[in-house]
Amino acid sequence: MRIALDAMGAERGARIVIEGAVAAIRENSRVKVLLVGEERRIKKELAKLSVKKSLFTLVPASQVVTMNDTPAETLKEKRDSSIAVAAELVRQDSAEAMVSCGNTGVVMATALVKLKKLEGVRRPCLAVSLPTLSSERVILTDVGANVDCRPAHLLQFALMGSLYANSLLGKKSPRVGLLNIGTEAGKGGEVLAQTFRLLQQSALNFVGNVEGNDIISGKIDVVVCDGFVGNTILKFAESFAITTLNIIKQEIGESSSELGDFFSRKWLARVRKNLDYSEYGGIPLLGINGVCIIAHGASTSKAVKNAILIGYEFAQSNINQSIKSALRKNQEAVEQ
Amino acid sequence: MRIALDAMGAERGARIVIEGAVAAIRENSRVKVLLVGEERRIKKELAKLSVKKSLFTLVPASQVVTMNDTPAETLKEKRDSSIAVAAELVRQDSAEAMVSCGNTGVVMATALVKLKKLEGVRRPCLAVSLPTLSSERVILTDVGANVDCRPAHLLQFALMGSLYANSLLGKKSPRVGLLNIGTEAGKGGEVLAQTFRLLQQSALNFVGNVEGNDIISGKIDVVVCDGFVGNTILKFAESFAITTLNIIKQEIGESSSELGDFFSRKWLARVRKNLDYSEYGGIPLLGINGVCIIAHGASTSKAVKNAILIGYEFAQSNINQSIKSALRKNQEAVEQ
Repeated sequence: MRIALDAMGAERGARIVIEGAVAAIRENSRVKVLLVGEERRIKKELAKLSVKKSLFTLVPASQVVTMNDTPAETLKEKRDSSIAVAAELVRQDSAEAMVSCGNTGVVMATALVKLKKLEGVRRPCLAVSLPTLSSERVILTDVGANVDCRPAHLLQFALMGSLYANSLLGKKSPRVGLLNIGTEAGKGGEVLAQTFRLLQQSALNFVGNVEGNDIISGKIDVVVCDGFVGNTILKFAESFAITTLNIIKQEIGESSSELGDFFSRKWLARVRKNLDYSEYGGIPLLGINGVCIIAHGASTSKAVKNAILIGYEFAQSNINQSIKSALRKNQEAVEQ
Repeated sequence: MRIALDAMGAERGARIVIEGAVAAIRENSRVKVLLVGEERRIKKELAKLSVKKSLFTLVPASQVVTMNDTPAETLKEKRDSSIAVAAELVRQDSAEAMVSCGNTGVVMATALVKLKKLEGVRRPCLAVSLPTLSSERVILTDVGANVDCRPAHLLQFALMGSLYANSLLGKKSPRVGLLNIGTEAGKGGEVLAQTFRLLQQSALNFVGNVEGNDIISGKIDVVVCDGFVGNTILKFAESFAITTLNIIKQEIGESSSELGDFFSRKWLARVRKNLDYSEYGGIPLLGINGVCIIAHGASTSKAVKNAILIGYEFAQSNINQSIKSALRKNQEAVEQ
């Protein structure tokens, strides 16, 4: 399975991207990585890290997209950027998935233009898989692709999120909840009231409205919301987790003796694992004709590794075929 | 300072409300509590708790509002509810503030109808004060009073939130941020783009757009958003904090020996304090001609105590006068 990896977009530099790629290949030997970017810079980093060039295929791209570039300009003026080249590799079937830590808006726009939407999809969405208190994970979608959403869009996010939970998390009949500020059917304004009705009529396992406190309860498998709310929740959760770990570290530092420290550390590693939002690694853009995984700009090498492995799993899965066929079945409701 | 306390609305019963009132009086002897509700039930609870009746003034109210009651029906049919009587006490200047753990929609509607909006206020808002990683607190507003907001509404939330931070948290020139999904000026759709311009033109210390991860960073004093997003964030934060504490408890339980446990507990109490979202206690409804503090339905006695003390502080402060005068000054921008 060939993953086209944008080596240029990460805030922490090409080095952590390459380290992540090495780790991904070590963890799953069926992963092949195509490193896309400025050839000289990549070769220099490989030499510094004493990584053999033969571990990867290098695909040159002469331009680099920055965080300040806008999608419209970039599509016109940076046709040989590492993002554009990675997407082109997927379009030409030279790679099964693309992964980038770069400018999210540009990655989404490029994937959309190069790979196109899947038949029947109105708006692709970003769907993140988050840890919950139970051992289960929850899919939250949309987390940033669409600010203003109509009921038909939210219905499609629900369908695609449900197929994500089914195909990749192995949930048989994923419980879908509509994020709202009350559980009653008419809550939250006209768009959500209509979405509620569409979800009820759909073939999904719709459990009704859910609230902010239900998201990580473990009782819901897919939480549907617009991209403004989802993006805000995701960023808040990340910072809350980091804040909490910092508080714990501060407090342990202040109160522990050497012995206490020993006991503390043992479980701290496990708490960290539950709270480490860098571990989710990558967010798939669902609804496009291909696989595109968007990783955090500030990704660590571990996050890059996980994003690559998510790309592998998505490429392995049959999810795009499932989305197309589910959308055909739900066409009637969507047409409303 | 007399606080009219709705003794009936708490999910955990009148007992925790009374316990909270006793604790508030112990902590601040200038607090006088008027216990409002069914006389027999209150007397029974006081007897059970061995609390002297003379500690409180009892104000009878024959009806009880449930969580299923709608504001419109309740205002018509439950005119002698504990919520209505508490609001009436404030209206008649027989109390300086009301506090309720009851049905939020009904409490807001009753306060609005009985006490009226302050001159110039378009929409009252709920403003919560949350802990951050730094020792500073942050005001998040609106957290549930208004789902659909126009720029002029959001501007007023910013003004009222800023005065909250100034009058009650002692911040000299509170840094106001507009919650968005990007920091650039045009982000997030037309309503937010217009709000951005209004905030720039205002006399507020507007620092620009902020994102989900900035809310509890400690770098912002007032975060402005619509009630849908704010309510979702607040409920998510509560559940996240509880989840985190549960994970820590589980992990400590699994890994600690008696000795480790001893060291763990010492700091655990301090971590809990930072994460205990029951401690914020009460949320003021800003923009009404009086003081109304809304506490969580599932409040503990500590949360009730804190809600009463917040009511005391608000009644002491000159915030309503400040809001009226600030709104007069900003009239021009608001009229847009």
